[in-house]
Amino acid sequence: MELNNYISVDCVIFGFDGERLKVLLVDRTLSEGSTSFTDLTLTGNHVYENEPLDAAADRVLFELTGLTNIYLEQFKTFAHPDRLTKENDIKWLQHDGRDPFQRIVSVGYFALLATDQVTLEWKGRNVQWVPVDEVGELAFDHNLILESALLSLRNKIIHEPIGFELLPQKFTLSQVQKVYEIILDTEFDKRNFRKKVARMKYLIPLDEKQKGVAHKPAQLYMFSRDVYGNTKKDLLNFIV
Amino acid sequence: MELNNYISVDCVIFGFDGERLKVLLVDRTLSEGSTSFTDLTLTGNHVYENEPLDAAADRVLFELTGLTNIYLEQFKTFAHPDRLTKENDIKWLQHDGRDPFQRIVSVGYFALLATDQVTLEWKGRNVQWVPVDEVGELAFDHNLILESALLSLRNKIIHEPIGFELLPQKFTLSQVQKVYEIILDTEFDKRNFRKKVARMKYLIPLDEKQKGVAHKPAQLYMFSRDVYGNTKKDLLNFIV
Repeated sequence: MELNNYISVDCVIFGFDGERLKVLLVDRTLSEGSTSFTDLTLTGNHVYENEPLDAAADRVLFELTGLTNIYLEQFKTFAHPDRLTKENDIKWLQHDGRDPFQRIVSVGYFALLATDQVTLEWKGRNVQWVPVDEVGELAFDHNLILESALLSLRNKIIHEPIGFELLPQKFTLSQVQKVYEIILDTEFDKRNFRKKVARMKYLIPLDEKQKGVAHKPAQLYMFSRDVYGNTKKDLLNFIV
Repeated sequence: MELNNYISVDCVIFGFDGERLKVLLVDRTLSEGSTSFTDLTLTGNHVYENEPLDAAADRVLFELTGLTNIYLEQFKTFAHPDRLTKENDIKWLQHDGRDPFQRIVSVGYFALLATDQVTLEWKGRNVQWVPVDEVGELAFDHNLILESALLSLRNKIIHEPIGFELLPQKFTLSQVQKVYEIILDTEFDKRNFRKKVARMKYLIPLDEKQKGVAHKPAQLYMFSRDVYGNTKKDLLNFIV
């Protein structure tokens, strides 16, 4: 199967380690003649001629994680005529046998991972988690794509309970608060936050507590997609 | 300037006439040899080689309305390998001098118009407003694009005050309620809705009432983008 030359997907893969929001980046190293550089890119690839966009994004994620049921969402498409015209990008594309003056449409997806289970090598390139607030200058227009993904994530987390995708299956309310605080770049009063959370019928307390912690173990909860499906309408009326 | 063969924008232009949500559609008529049909498409076009996506969508809207400051948002991209393979679509593309087997990426935008000021002819084709719930089978994958735009509009109107883009500059609270009811396909209790609206500091009562109505004239309001910019944070805390 041939790859389509002008349609690609870029995946902004977010993870949360309990403290920080991170994004999965891949090394890009080129050493050829007088050209020598190493920098980082998002994960992505061209789509195959007969491949739908979602399938291409799923494929990239599967290659990186071995997982198939990851939260993945198309958020924006990037096709500015000048998006691939930085000097290193031109050299990289030429080295890769591509025409750097071909206009490439990149469809952006963001993914939320509750696991650090990713391959550390992908297509012969090193893969690493980088805290979102420590990301430097990326290749191509990938800083723009990352910023745009963050914006979509922030907008979405306000009205859909996707934050739980970043948490383990069983989690504490402190962990929930931390995810929301990190993504929305704000701090919540613990007592008010708990009051709001208490109204979320889809957060189910379990008969279990944390294990192996130094402090008093906290109650564990789960997120019920079933219950959320049936309370969505209420939420909506609550908000409008 | 040449048009790019594989990147297009499709614009789902919504309007509200005080009673119904409508979408702007364009006639597509082909009569050639044994082929003869008339159906409807969304408004859209290929992008020029050096044209950013947003500029292409702006251009389509300007051609149709003469307006430049319309609410316009990229919502999803469509590039399924089979999206242009219906028989009439193939004939139409061939008639138009295009290769129907070229995979075309279409970037979907939705626009909200508070005016019915649109041209009635565009590129020699008739233009018409059709109530969203009366739209039949459209050309290409345009039903899918329309449904997806509606979904985005519904999701967005819950957490951002974009409903006002569909209303005249000065409006009544009944009109606000109607817009939300139509788009969310629900009914709100008038008294509860007014209570919620009263908390929206960006809805400013004017020293004016409706004119020329048979019933008791209602208070007119305006939407203040300035005030909304400063209350957004509160709203966010209110919701989460």
